[in-house]
Amino acid sequence: MRRWNGWGDDNFTMALPDQGHAFLADRIGTSPALPDVSLSTVCDSVPPSRLPADSDAAPLIDCSPEARVRHARGQSLADWLAMRSGNIGVFPDGVARPRNSRDVQKLLRFAKRHSLQLIPYGGGTSVAGHINPVKADNPVLTVDMSDMNRLTDLNRESQIATFGAGTPGPLVESQLRAHGYTLGHYPQSFELSTIGGWVASRSSGQQSLRYGRIEQLFAGGSIETLQGTWDLPTFPASSAGPDLREFILGSEGRLGLITEVKVRISRLPEQESFHVFFFPDWEQARTACRKLVQNRTQLSMLRLSNGAETETQLALAGHPRLIGLLESFLSLRGAGSGKCMMTFGLTGSRHQCKAAVKEVRQICSEYKGVYTGTRLGKKWAEKRFTMPYLREALWKMGYAVDTLETATDWDNVDNLLELIEKNLRDGLKDKNESTHVFTHLSHFYGQGCSIYTTYVFRVADTYEETLSRWRSLKNTTSELIVQNGGTISHQHGVGKDHAPFLPVEKGELGMLAIRSLCATFDPDALLNPKTLVE
Amino acid sequence: MRRWNGWGDDNFTMALPDQGHAFLADRIGTSPALPDVSLSTVCDSVPPSRLPADSDAAPLIDCSPEARVRHARGQSLADWLAMRSGNIGVFPDGVARPRNSRDVQKLLRFAKRHSLQLIPYGGGTSVAGHINPVKADNPVLTVDMSDMNRLTDLNRESQIATFGAGTPGPLVESQLRAHGYTLGHYPQSFELSTIGGWVASRSSGQQSLRYGRIEQLFAGGSIETLQGTWDLPTFPASSAGPDLREFILGSEGRLGLITEVKVRISRLPEQESFHVFFFPDWEQARTACRKLVQNRTQLSMLRLSNGAETETQLALAGHPRLIGLLESFLSLRGAGSGKCMMTFGLTGSRHQCKAAVKEVRQICSEYKGVYTGTRLGKKWAEKRFTMPYLREALWKMGYAVDTLETATDWDNVDNLLELIEKNLRDGLKDKNESTHVFTHLSHFYGQGCSIYTTYVFRVADTYEETLSRWRSLKNTTSELIVQNGGTISHQHGVGKDHAPFLPVEKGELGMLAIRSLCATFDPDALLNPKTLVE
Repeated sequence: MRRWNGWGDDNFTMALPDQGHAFLADRIGTSPALPDVSLSTVCDSVPPSRLPADSDAAPLIDCSPEARVRHARGQSLADWLAMRSGNIGVFPDGVARPRNSRDVQKLLRFAKRHSLQLIPYGGGTSVAGHINPVKADNPVLTVDMSDMNRLTDLNRESQIATFGAGTPGPLVESQLRAHGYTLGHYPQSFELSTIGGWVASRSSGQQSLRYGRIEQLFAGGSIETLQGTWDLPTFPASSAGPDLREFILGSEGRLGLITEVKVRISRLPEQESFHVFFFPDWEQARTACRKLVQNRTQLSMLRLSNGAETETQLALAGHPRLIGLLESFLSLRGAGSGKCMMTFGLTGSRHQCKAAVKEVRQICSEYKGVYTGTRLGKKWAEKRFTMPYLREALWKMGYAVDTLETATDWDNVDNLLELIEKNLRDGLKDKNESTHVFTHLSHFYGQGCSIYTTYVFRVADTYEETLSRWRSLKNTTSELIVQNGGTISHQHGVGKDHAPFLPVEKGELGMLAIRSLCATFDPDALLNPKTLVE
Repeated sequence: MRRWNGWGDDNFTMALPDQGHAFLADRIGTSPALPDVSLSTVCDSVPPSRLPADSDAAPLIDCSPEARVRHARGQSLADWLAMRSGNIGVFPDGVARPRNSRDVQKLLRFAKRHSLQLIPYGGGTSVAGHINPVKADNPVLTVDMSDMNRLTDLNRESQIATFGAGTPGPLVESQLRAHGYTLGHYPQSFELSTIGGWVASRSSGQQSLRYGRIEQLFAGGSIETLQGTWDLPTFPASSAGPDLREFILGSEGRLGLITEVKVRISRLPEQESFHVFFFPDWEQARTACRKLVQNRTQLSMLRLSNGAETETQLALAGHPRLIGLLESFLSLRGAGSGKCMMTFGLTGSRHQCKAAVKEVRQICSEYKGVYTGTRLGKKWAEKRFTMPYLREALWKMGYAVDTLETATDWDNVDNLLELIEKNLRDGLKDKNESTHVFTHLSHFYGQGCSIYTTYVFRVADTYEETLSRWRSLKNTTSELIVQNGGTISHQHGVGKDHAPFLPVEKGELGMLAIRSLCATFDPDALLNPKTLVE
């Protein structure tokens, strides 16, 4: 069953190897874990629902405390602390489970009639507070889209598949693979996040180098709004005025509820493999990656860990003897302390993969890269969606883990990366606490790349103090990002947590444009209020 | 000097070979050309300017009749007929030539103070009426951006170049090539159209398969609006809410005047070549092209002429002996009557081009394609921007030429193509006139492609009747396109000519979104009124 207060299925756990624990203890010390409250305790604290009962929408709505608890929070560290401590704050007053667009229309009419807040809920995997209800006088109805999870049309010639917006990653891929197709969209949240959520929050997957971000995959669909149904027809491309898909992408529930998503799919590839290079230092590694992407080498994924992340990953991997051998080999080849690990994916036809691997070897050898084959790449592929489970293991050892991500142009990558890492590393110094910080670049573009930084710190004696430490790290770093040429989010959206930082990025007139759209479609701000725009 | 009433430089003319003339005469007959009026006659007909003279903007503005004539019309067939007949209708009351953003701000204040209409003018190459003033009580000021034509910044690491919005294609490329870079954006209007115009109208270039449409190339920039300056910062990608670049792309002057454009550039490629295949029939040719693009074969351009276009191009090429030999060779290899010509471009590294050509040969041979080398491809590349000059030659022989274009999903390509061709072919039957119609597919996507249809008909005895025939062909076919799953424009924008057809494509709520944006930024509809949205 799905964990009510953490990530994923509770039958699945990941353990941190002893060496990994020792590594962290050495860096930031140890701490007793904070105690988790039980689901039943939290359910007992849920106040009565404020939803009007006499409605034709009532049969769609579950007002049980457990449903309301399970839909109150996402997966940010703040959400974790809230769920673990039981100090959750606001619960939705009910959870609706529409089966089709007509049900969604019914819910919108219901919301309008009673001035309800309406929060669309996909996989509940937001790490930016998208689905958290805010305290307000009007009741909150969360709309869980999970029953709309079918492949309803497959156009083989045009390679367009139509899905219910609540279809989660595994059901997207399994329904397509049965016909020989793939979407190829693999965010780390793949196991739970949904195709509608990907569109609403402008998601990006690990193989976006080949398949594109959700912006490139989203071909059209349907959105139910308070003004009626908004159908976006599919065109391969158009110059007929602004692209309305781009108004929906990243709209985060403020314009309406996405019910149907049409996506551009691909035939399953002839070949796929993942490989690893090591570089002696960051400068050479980063330059090699930039050259690869600016050269348009046909890779499907590329990820570059900095020295700290490389060291951490090797330490946390377990298998100290094997890792020791690898490190000796690398050291002999010039990649010793400070080495950086680059993982890349080859996906496509035989000719494409062959040409790409030649180019990778050529460019990487110019920057002293050492090729180590596919063994570590295979490991990466096996564990690509399991990292969130490690958070669970670390939590039980008294460690809090969070990540921050942005994207910026190449000429600003080093500057911004260093600012972020330094701010996180020094952020708890006044508490005499250390933070363990490491970074990778994951999504690559000719113009720049994403920066994805992980930070680990010991939990404090209380939930309140742990939350306060997190908030200080998160907010000062977010401010630093937008003040220094980074986007507030490359792949996780805005939600409520990033909304205060959006105006710096979008500017006064940009915010005017977004606000005017929201006001046009939702003049009373019933739809996911305080999300995206405060 | 630039032709005042047609395309391009008046030192440059193209002749139609005798065989070409005979071919057209055989298909649709001959007709005496209509007489052209002179520039001076038209200048004499220009009414006095209604612009207020006492303004700090006055030194920027040219109210001479010739400037006003030269900025009154674009390059649609209706514009040609207007300029050739002298029946131009509305002239701008003056033409401003700002040198920088401050000048543009000054013009906006001037417009606001006196309720002037403001029309941004790039290369004046619109074929959809973007820059034509409409009859109204308030005076019209056209803003010619051509003095803002410099490369002002080149960021080599991030591969971003900053240009003044009025920079035309050749100045974009020459300024970049001096540093070893290219933008790679080659619309047929390349010689005259500007980088700001490309953004405003969502342009697409012939090598978009490699370099992307202007949507992919436009990284950010500045727009001067009536609400202030709107700066769009550059990010490689972002999930922070709606992508505001996409609000500006295709805005056609309705939100403000684009003054500065930042674009994603590439290193000049190692290799580039253009090649030609012939296929026995349309079905096999079209399928091969679809397979190529769905296979993600790294081509830089791809164009497929249908049987009628292939025949017309070979007939109009001249060199009957050489063409005869080619046709005999092709016929022996199975590509006889009804054959279709496919041109493709290879651009990139040695490894990329090698892999791509292998895939092209493999896929094309599955569909009975006959490879003919690079000779015809080279010819295509030499003449890629000169086709508009042929229109001039045909006009002088009594023929009117126009094109219509759209894009649609693969499963609708044949259906829509046939509807368009049939409607154009039969459109003048009630006048006992024939139309010569042919088509190519030019821009290819996994999901579908563009359809570009050319039609040639004899001019009538009068300008009025010729215009009326054109209007009937254009409007009935445009209606057909939007009612049958095509976009009203894949690469030419909406302007005033396509505006009546936009609501079918965008839907009621899509139009609401666009209108609300226009009203937010320009509540009094001063900026390019009747364009994009009627």
